[in-house]
Amino acid sequence: MIDGVVLTPLRRIADDRGAVMHMLRVDSPVFQQFGEIYFSSVHPGKIKAWHYHHRMSLNYAVPVGRINFVLFDPRPHSLTHGQVQEIALGDDDYALVSVPPGLWTGFQCVGGETALVANCATLAHDPSEGERKDHDDPSIPYVWRERP
Amino acid sequence: MIDGVVLTPLRRIADDRGAVMHMLRVDSPVFQQFGEIYFSSVHPGKIKAWHYHHRMSLNYAVPVGRINFVLFDPRPHSLTHGQVQEIALGDDDYALVSVPPGLWTGFQCVGGETALVANCATLAHDPSEGERKDHDDPSIPYVWRERP
Repeated sequence: MIDGVVLTPLRRIADDRGAVMHMLRVDSPVFQQFGEIYFSSVHPGKIKAWHYHHRMSLNYAVPVGRINFVLFDPRPHSLTHGQVQEIALGDDDYALVSVPPGLWTGFQCVGGETALVANCATLAHDPSEGERKDHDDPSIPYVWRERP
Repeated sequence: MIDGVVLTPLRRIADDRGAVMHMLRVDSPVFQQFGEIYFSSVHPGKIKAWHYHHRMSLNYAVPVGRINFVLFDPRPHSLTHGQVQEIALGDDDYALVSVPPGLWTGFQCVGGETALVANCATLAHDPSEGERKDHDDPSIPYVWRERP
């Protein structure tokens, strides 16, 4: 696991009507502060990458569909400098991924249905706080799967 | 509108990959405090009702599918005492519904796909803080649609 990233399994309590899916509580060990909760839907095969945050920590969960979530650690003094990590997220692998600032992140919908990524971040969105690169930027050593 | 309930239209920014859907920011006029964010999925036609909270305020948004959200005001001194209200929520009516304590609430999935209701509540879930009634309890003057 990339240094500072925390994976917390989450409860999904199903019955014949649907399911209740936990995400984040104020008394969770990974909760820092509330900045914003928003969603990103991703159609099958589509990629949203790459994103970087200077100060914001992310908390991702995927309550609908399946996502391949990818992280790259560019931090010069990190124990995991230069490493890439893939994490499978979705209703079958229902978990919270908490990501500190200073990493490049991206995700691809790998299921047959449109996926929903929820992000409960420590800061409200501020374009001046983040950076972006194209999903195939050569500075990040990761090749996304072929799109369907 | 039932007294104290606030409906805030939300932005949904779509492109060919999917959409970004806002829900709640710390600097929103309706934000009070963060207790918990969780999801409830509801299969077509299914009802989740009735729920009551003594102290918790709710913030509901529906990023997937379509919901008929229903509120009943039992507060003796409310301007809208005894009234029932229906609110259509979904990706076509994308909005945040903020609900104060003291109301009965419930919802039904009215679309053809499983809907996802997100609730960013002011308190973490505490069974001693809430009450429940069956969806057809005669004390609440509302008849749900026939299930498919």
